[in-house]
Amino acid sequence: MIRNATLPDGSRHDIEIADGRIAALRPPTTSEPAVFLLPPLVDGHIHLDKTLLGLPWVPNQAAGNAVADRIEAERKVRANRTVSETETGANLVKQVVTSGTLHMRSHVDIDNQLGLKNLHAILAVRERFRDLVTIQIVAFPQSGVIRSPGTADLLDAAIAEGADLVGGLDPVGIDRDLDGHLDAIFGVAEKHGVGVDIHLHDGGEGGITQMNAIARRTRATGLKGKVAISHAFALGSVPTDLAARTADTLAEAGIAIMSHGPGAATMPPLPLLRAHGVEVFGGSDNIRDAWSPFGNGDMLDRAMLIGYRANFRHDHELALPYEMVTSAAARVLSLADYGIRIGGPADFVAVEAETLAETVAARPRRKWVMKAGRIVARDGVLA
Amino acid sequence: MIRNATLPDGSRHDIEIADGRIAALRPPTTSEPAVFLLPPLVDGHIHLDKTLLGLPWVPNQAAGNAVADRIEAERKVRANRTVSETETGANLVKQVVTSGTLHMRSHVDIDNQLGLKNLHAILAVRERFRDLVTIQIVAFPQSGVIRSPGTADLLDAAIAEGADLVGGLDPVGIDRDLDGHLDAIFGVAEKHGVGVDIHLHDGGEGGITQMNAIARRTRATGLKGKVAISHAFALGSVPTDLAARTADTLAEAGIAIMSHGPGAATMPPLPLLRAHGVEVFGGSDNIRDAWSPFGNGDMLDRAMLIGYRANFRHDHELALPYEMVTSAAARVLSLADYGIRIGGPADFVAVEAETLAETVAARPRRKWVMKAGRIVARDGVLA
Repeated sequence: MIRNATLPDGSRHDIEIADGRIAALRPPTTSEPAVFLLPPLVDGHIHLDKTLLGLPWVPNQAAGNAVADRIEAERKVRANRTVSETETGANLVKQVVTSGTLHMRSHVDIDNQLGLKNLHAILAVRERFRDLVTIQIVAFPQSGVIRSPGTADLLDAAIAEGADLVGGLDPVGIDRDLDGHLDAIFGVAEKHGVGVDIHLHDGGEGGITQMNAIARRTRATGLKGKVAISHAFALGSVPTDLAARTADTLAEAGIAIMSHGPGAATMPPLPLLRAHGVEVFGGSDNIRDAWSPFGNGDMLDRAMLIGYRANFRHDHELALPYEMVTSAAARVLSLADYGIRIGGPADFVAVEAETLAETVAARPRRKWVMKAGRIVARDGVLA
Repeated sequence: MIRNATLPDGSRHDIEIADGRIAALRPPTTSEPAVFLLPPLVDGHIHLDKTLLGLPWVPNQAAGNAVADRIEAERKVRANRTVSETETGANLVKQVVTSGTLHMRSHVDIDNQLGLKNLHAILAVRERFRDLVTIQIVAFPQSGVIRSPGTADLLDAAIAEGADLVGGLDPVGIDRDLDGHLDAIFGVAEKHGVGVDIHLHDGGEGGITQMNAIARRTRATGLKGKVAISHAFALGSVPTDLAARTADTLAEAGIAIMSHGPGAATMPPLPLLRAHGVEVFGGSDNIRDAWSPFGNGDMLDRAMLIGYRANFRHDHELALPYEMVTSAAARVLSLADYGIRIGGPADFVAVEAETLAETVAARPRRKWVMKAGRIVARDGVLA
């Protein structure tokens, strides 16, 4: 029994737990609020195979600021790794669990040099932590599909070996072949009946053109509701009327948009997207890896960054980044067993806060994290 | 004696402390690095009188997104305060000390309704914590000088009562009178021989025009090296050549630029400013007040936000936000007794990090904070 818990909607209950599930929500028997509870945090976009967490500090080595420069720098860093992705990925899973994340979608690099090596590493991490966290895997062609011949077959093999979705990357910016890239990735997705999650950094009208093409493919392949575009910086760099028309197209195709609250790139206009019926969700993206020195995998930290970048200040505005790292991300990941309700899983994150807005703005300390009625982390330390 | 401390430049020493000062830096006697030390963090822009820290959560109440809307909302929040600024200001000082800040410049609201009430509150806070922290006070005309008649006389009185600098606020955006505003604030500064620190949110070429006018006043009043412009969003919203020419003008007048790493507003181009000889420094700005729900006063958190917004990823880039919250801010605040050197104060922040870049990117836990050879905070708790 958890006594006098305040739930995200502000209601207070004594929560009865039985067999790892919420058996009942009863009127509180004490008068003082005891604990503020959130459902588990959901990371809609992480790169478990990229992180260098646990290694000595590795300075960023990219020669320039382009995506292609960072891809090249990552090859160098990878070649000099002294610790396997299995170990660093495990370090990251343990860290995020202590902050309250119990579900995540991880992209995993695949190209014609790496093959399925990173996939195998993250499949092993998933297996190791299967009782603790849900890890959905995206087979991610980090070096492109056209520029890295043979990658399409590897994506196909990856799905066969256990990846859940097909990824993609800037069809124009990296592969310089919009149709060729989309042919390849939607071909694999259609063959296996799996979803697609495409990294799209390309900005401006060029980025919008690619979104429209992705929407056409989504409708043509019957993948409505199973496709996401990650980053989608372009939506924040074009005039509002074009962003609004694109939002209608995305909504019609059931395409969700992931934002990590980028530091310098333009933010997709989140309230506009929601108003037009587009699902928006949050993710960490890079966490102390060859791409970025920043990031810690804490999804309340991430919600704060998203809200800060979006200029949200009112409580009703701060509710959106909260949803992006909880229920909205859960919907995109098709998590069937999610949320605080009678019969639902006894999965909770206890935070030091008074209101939902405060959990986003102040990134409060996590007192404990519960999974199926069992405390799995306390005060930032794994149980 | 602090054994085998790593200093920000990567060197390792045993540090001998005597009478609250660094008596000697000796070769380390142990082989394992024991602790990474920073000099005290410096907050170049805080609002000790605005924070609501320690009060129950207060939702943001601004009707719109303009500076004028937020000024109006703050009046309402202030009218409903149940706890004095002396208490909330003290809460904030205690919180920032635990994160390693021992020096700060606080703006304090002054207008014809408030009078010197907030100044008196923060003077009391300064007196209370005088042995722990340095608090420099800016007499800040939050409601304008022209729009709030009588404010110029109040600024004059504030300096006489102990404020250290004269503030200012968007001469055009708020007062709609560039010359009138600058006449008033530079008049008070010149009379008392004190510095000036002006909030300038106005963007675009209009903001640049105001910077040029501030530079002319600075030269005319002999205040070179004693003037700062806070925010200076305009520098990030004009073409690079205009920003570069303005940087030359600012450098010639010895005007420093403060950035807090804004969420949605444009960032001043920090590397360009530095390359043109402009001093740039960091500050928290709003911390859980009527303006913003965000902020916690942690200057490593702030350095991270500045670096993230500026798209810094390389170690040499991350050194700039570090300097902005340490030595550069110390220079702007004219702190004579600052920095890790033989004979300098035994003031340190011990962090869990391996490199300087990591202290910015990862915002590591503060193990302890030392002031004049005495531990004043440990593990986030005031001693």
